[in-house]
Amino acid sequence: MKLSQRVKEVPFSAIRKLTPLSDAAEKAGKKVYHLNIGAPDTKTPEEFLDAIRAIELQTIDYAPSKGIKELREATCGYYARRGKSYDPEKDIVITSGASEALRFAVETICDIGDNIVTTNPFYSNYQTMAKEIGIKMKTFDTIIDQGYRLPSKDVIQEAIDERSRAILISNPSNPTGAVYSHEEIQRIVDVALENDLFIIADEVYSEFIFDGAEFASFTGVEGIDDRLILMDSISKRFGACGARIGALICKNPEIMDGVVRLATSRLAVSTVDQIGAAALYDVSDAYFRNVNDEYNRRRHAIYEELTKLDGVKVTMPEGAFYVMPELPVKDTDDFAAWLLNDFEDEGETVMVAPAFGFYQNNDAGKTQVRLAYVINEKDIRRAIQILGKALVEYKKDHE
Amino acid sequence: MKLSQRVKEVPFSAIRKLTPLSDAAEKAGKKVYHLNIGAPDTKTPEEFLDAIRAIELQTIDYAPSKGIKELREATCGYYARRGKSYDPEKDIVITSGASEALRFAVETICDIGDNIVTTNPFYSNYQTMAKEIGIKMKTFDTIIDQGYRLPSKDVIQEAIDERSRAILISNPSNPTGAVYSHEEIQRIVDVALENDLFIIADEVYSEFIFDGAEFASFTGVEGIDDRLILMDSISKRFGACGARIGALICKNPEIMDGVVRLATSRLAVSTVDQIGAAALYDVSDAYFRNVNDEYNRRRHAIYEELTKLDGVKVTMPEGAFYVMPELPVKDTDDFAAWLLNDFEDEGETVMVAPAFGFYQNNDAGKTQVRLAYVINEKDIRRAIQILGKALVEYKKDHE
Repeated sequence: MKLSQRVKEVPFSAIRKLTPLSDAAEKAGKKVYHLNIGAPDTKTPEEFLDAIRAIELQTIDYAPSKGIKELREATCGYYARRGKSYDPEKDIVITSGASEALRFAVETICDIGDNIVTTNPFYSNYQTMAKEIGIKMKTFDTIIDQGYRLPSKDVIQEAIDERSRAILISNPSNPTGAVYSHEEIQRIVDVALENDLFIIADEVYSEFIFDGAEFASFTGVEGIDDRLILMDSISKRFGACGARIGALICKNPEIMDGVVRLATSRLAVSTVDQIGAAALYDVSDAYFRNVNDEYNRRRHAIYEELTKLDGVKVTMPEGAFYVMPELPVKDTDDFAAWLLNDFEDEGETVMVAPAFGFYQNNDAGKTQVRLAYVINEKDIRRAIQILGKALVEYKKDHE
Repeated sequence: MKLSQRVKEVPFSAIRKLTPLSDAAEKAGKKVYHLNIGAPDTKTPEEFLDAIRAIELQTIDYAPSKGIKELREATCGYYARRGKSYDPEKDIVITSGASEALRFAVETICDIGDNIVTTNPFYSNYQTMAKEIGIKMKTFDTIIDQGYRLPSKDVIQEAIDERSRAILISNPSNPTGAVYSHEEIQRIVDVALENDLFIIADEVYSEFIFDGAEFASFTGVEGIDDRLILMDSISKRFGACGARIGALICKNPEIMDGVVRLATSRLAVSTVDQIGAAALYDVSDAYFRNVNDEYNRRRHAIYEELTKLDGVKVTMPEGAFYVMPELPVKDTDDFAAWLLNDFEDEGETVMVAPAFGFYQNNDAGKTQVRLAYVINEKDIRRAIQILGKALVEYKKDHE
């Protein structure tokens, strides 16, 4: 008896693999500032728990495989307010987080050995999904020195081959924090049209775009309804990561036919979470403004503190709540472990996500880390100051 | 742009594919007795909603990927009371229903093109899982004339080839209602040992064994800890199908290492459902006795009514809440649709699951249906009496 090769190729999560070290550090009495994981500390609106507390079901029965009507309608209402009309009966299936939406999308369009084209770096869990279902990721580089912008059409085109089935774009980008412009999104659309590819849009961070900048959603592009598959999630939108509620949204009936079959097989998504999630759409616009303002303050704080550090290269993040700076170390895997095992400043240290796990066949990540600015401004400043002291100390030890 | 071949090969759920017809029948004013789906009508214990109502979290954050400690401990405690010791830290990962546990198990041990060996018929959603992740199902027949017992070692052995990685057994059986004896379970163990295969045990109906019969769980067999992967679920145990809470339980650390990596990639299972599920384990033994008594009454009722019908072949179901009789019709797919579209008795009809979708490469299912006795005794008797009248009428129309 042996394990499958595919599971052996599944990497330990870049974001969570150091958790045993941080657990040990915390057990030993160190305070650890967690910048490794994008779990927002913002309060989930009370509407969620209020709706759940009001549940009076005798039997917690299966929800419909497509999701409860109230949530499908609320989600479509959200997109309607942003100018895009989706039919809650035909165009949406509620999923267990955006993770399941991505898996359904890819299973529906990819056979074994097909590939999906995306940026390098990319959200590391895309790779696990690919290994699980027997597809490949093909990538084009986005580079720190160019502010992680999307490259030219020619560069994107080079990543595509005859087995490519879709381009997958995370915008705002996890892990880089880049937000792509209308021109960049149109570039992706052009390449997709020229190569007859689907577009899978991961826009789960779309509330996290700052200074009133306009968001170039794929949903705003005309003429791609048959090829656009949208991954949706309430996790970041409402600070409700632990309610595993996402959606797959698409106006191509063939795609939705396949997705419904897959959804039926896994039966349903949590009934209680769906009831809570539907109520979240009743929150006021002020909720979004307050959250956005708070993250914008954090964004400025982390950028300002990072720019003070010698040898750290950083571009101002534009969206999501990530920044991916380059540090003056040779191996951020080693540095991140050292931060937890061997360093402290007045009993405190920092946990970061080494960026290597966000890249495929590219060593750029060895000198980069992904930082999630999901803790309060004061703690962010302190955490980055600790990081600065640690870099000085680490350099002494490793030269 | 075209859909994947794999999604095209995913059948519409045998259990749910007639739902549009039943929706139409109900819209037209017919009362439909639903015997098609195993969604118990029993009340979910109040502990679930009480625990959820007491949640005072500010942020509904991700649960740990392995599941919350309270639920892992409660689940292991359940098995400890049944004589099997599992370590809540090492041997269990909470999953989104048993469906996800099965997928994780198979991904961990099967590469593309490998196969899993199971009974024919089998729970139809196993097939979708296989198509999704690029593996095959190989089967050995269990036959109505033999009460759906497991066949001889030789017959089981014939289903195994060099790409076989595990034997998957649903006991009590969904869809047949058979409960396998210690001797039958030992037969599976012997074949697994001789062929060095894993055993995946789907025992989610283990509370539904009647008349005080002893349950031959694989967990009671010595010497197979390294190869036994248990799929667990609270759905049927506590009548809480809509709380998507299952578990994968296994004492092989290599397997668990792979499973944790997969679990980490999909981040977490619903925080709220886990809190509710942990509280369910506080229910008294009386709860289980009452539910078991109720289903036993329903079992006797459905069997008694079925034996009254001309030309219907049925064996007394021993467990779960299914029975799979043979009807005197040529095509139960057609008959099941006709029941919804064209038949009524005093404004009422019945929805059944045609058995064809539970079989692979075997026409036996064309004359069988799976009936779930998950409605009250009076309704069961009435539903089967309607079925009897329908069979007479259908025969007239189709001869």
